Amino acid sequence: MGKKKNVTFDDIAKYTHFSKTTISRYFNHPDSLTLENQEIISKALTELNYQENKVAKILANGKTEFIGVIIPTFYHHYYAEILNQILSTYEDFGYKFLVFVGNEQEDTERRYIKELLAYHIEGMLILSHTIPSRELAQLQVPIVTIEREDQYVCSVNTDNYMGAIQACSLLARHQCDILLHINSPTDPSVPAYGRAQGFLDFCKEHQLEHRMYIQELGFTHETVKSHLAEILEDIERTYSGRKKGIFVSNDTHANVLLNLLIRKYGTLPDDYYLVGFDNSPASQEAVLPISTIGQQMDKLAYEAVSLLVDQMNERKKRKPVPLAEPIHKVITPILFRRETTEK
Amino acid sequence: MGKKKNVTFDDIAKYTHFSKTTISRYFNHPDSLTLENQEIISKALTELNYQENKVAKILANGKTEFIGVIIPTFYHHYYAEILNQILSTYEDFGYKFLVFVGNEQEDTERRYIKELLAYHIEGMLILSHTIPSRELAQLQVPIVTIEREDQYVCSVNTDNYMGAIQACSLLARHQCDILLHINSPTDPSVPAYGRAQGFLDFCKEHQLEHRMYIQELGFTHETVKSHLAEILEDIERTYSGRKKGIFVSNDTHANVLLNLLIRKYGTLPDDYYLVGFDNSPASQEAVLPISTIGQQMDKLAYEAVSLLVDQMNERKKRKPVPLAEPIHKVITPILFRRETTEK
Repeated sequence: MGKKKNVTFDDIAKYTHFSKTTISRYFNHPDSLTLENQEIISKALTELNYQENKVAKILANGKTEFIGVIIPTFYHHYYAEILNQILSTYEDFGYKFLVFVGNEQEDTERRYIKELLAYHIEGMLILSHTIPSRELAQLQVPIVTIEREDQYVCSVNTDNYMGAIQACSLLARHQCDILLHINSPTDPSVPAYGRAQGFLDFCKEHQLEHRMYIQELGFTHETVKSHLAEILEDIERTYSGRKKGIFVSNDTHANVLLNLLIRKYGTLPDDYYLVGFDNSPASQEAVLPISTIGQQMDKLAYEAVSLLVDQMNERKKRKPVPLAEPIHKVITPILFRRETTEK
Repeated sequence: MGKKKNVTFDDIAKYTHFSKTTISRYFNHPDSLTLENQEIISKALTELNYQENKVAKILANGKTEFIGVIIPTFYHHYYAEILNQILSTYEDFGYKFLVFVGNEQEDTERRYIKELLAYHIEGMLILSHTIPSRELAQLQVPIVTIEREDQYVCSVNTDNYMGAIQACSLLARHQCDILLHINSPTDPSVPAYGRAQGFLDFCKEHQLEHRMYIQELGFTHETVKSHLAEILEDIERTYSGRKKGIFVSNDTHANVLLNLLIRKYGTLPDDYYLVGFDNSPASQEAVLPISTIGQQMDKLAYEAVSLLVDQMNERKKRKPVPLAEPIHKVITPILFRRETTEK
């Protein structure tokens, strides 16, 4: 790293013939200077090679260009992909990401967040579910959540309800006799609840026979597999000989269910239609590519970082105007028809 | 975040009745104080709530507790899992991780590393392949690489050669008539080269008929699938009626090959034996769980962070002793026998 001499406010003041107070105002409240003076100082910083010492910059204005990211788990391939997209926004915004995987450990997450705040991170993207948004809102740092409970904080979510309607419409168009939905118990405050609600509303509105399998499936492949095997056994027994349209609440689980069927029959039987959710890599890499409701992960990530950066920039103004209400952006999902429905 | 008043060296000096110079020495060269005095200052810091302001700490001693991580891509599930394990070491070491995904963009990686250094990160874990270790070694920051070319820097790698021997032994024990190896062109300086070398040496030593399919398979699921479909066609044509033992260089590709076979035959035919590499989630979640040479990802991650922290701590000493030679740790792989060989 080498111990380069820091460029001080003194150095900049001497170089530009401004007072130290003016230099300080440039860093803390640039809006209070004329554009012309801002440019003179900005040019001087480049010439003095000031950019190179970010620690000095943190000192000067408390801004680190760090964003904290909290991922709940990597079991769902969805999270690796959305993290990938978040990290890729470095090219657009220049922010660096301090990443943490919570693994549902609420206390560890709290401790980690506290640490991040001590480092003067500028904002946080929260994907984990453990800490209520009411508590997050009190942290005094801009926060944007993605696909989790978000009443008191800004968020970017997929239109899950619309996605469920798309999935059910597709299954209904294939004249399935019975529509089934497999999901974990989800609180109505969580965006993904729209997947179950949309399923129910669609089936009721179109008077379609339907059934929901709502149960905790677990967080490891083995437990998910054994729970889905039980559900599949029940489906086989109860709906034998009928055309079944199954909407699974995520691709990772849809893939497990598909594999159970393939192992039993060598192929997806004619009386099974299957739609997942997420368009995660699991859906494309499955033995039969799985039809799915695609979350636009690049857009979700871009919009989330963009919304966060807006808030972070507002706080850098001389007189920041706090948001009156949290902003909730909604991204439209996209239906991908693949081999589990188009046969 | 709130603008808390920073606790200054002055405050600590007054509180402890030490001189400011002593306080400064505590942060920069703690070894130069007696243990007793270290404890007095350490206690004062807690009482003054000094810990809370890490930015002040960075200022004081230039140590950020940040480690930069560069991941090449998330296409191979291996990288999501190893990142997961790296992030989980937060619990053991307390270091925070600035994560970047390079996507084979050498220039972006260089730019990102330059930025990280400007932030006074304490060390870097490099998993991407773009920048030669000779260049990395000149960066003047502790570096540990995982599973990439590592001549001039410290590294932690799986014993790839041993893994290949394990895979071939298993296939040989099943009396395969022909041993096949599918891999991408790999430079001998990359640890994964041991997979091909081990295959060759084992087959020659045991005078087993063998063939290597070495070609670039691509970085998206679609290109990998179409290349593997061509290879499979050649295998079917050339080795029809013979018992084939296929050692694929990673689980992601082994899974694609397995799915091609399952789609064609409804099951894995009796004359195919398949072993992958990595024990990545793809191998467990496959339609038939895939036998694989398991990289001990938790150990790889732990040892890599541990080796890095050792170097980082050395640099904090008053008279750091640089390593005479880079340290290369090797982790033994573990054979997992699953359904693609045990039938």
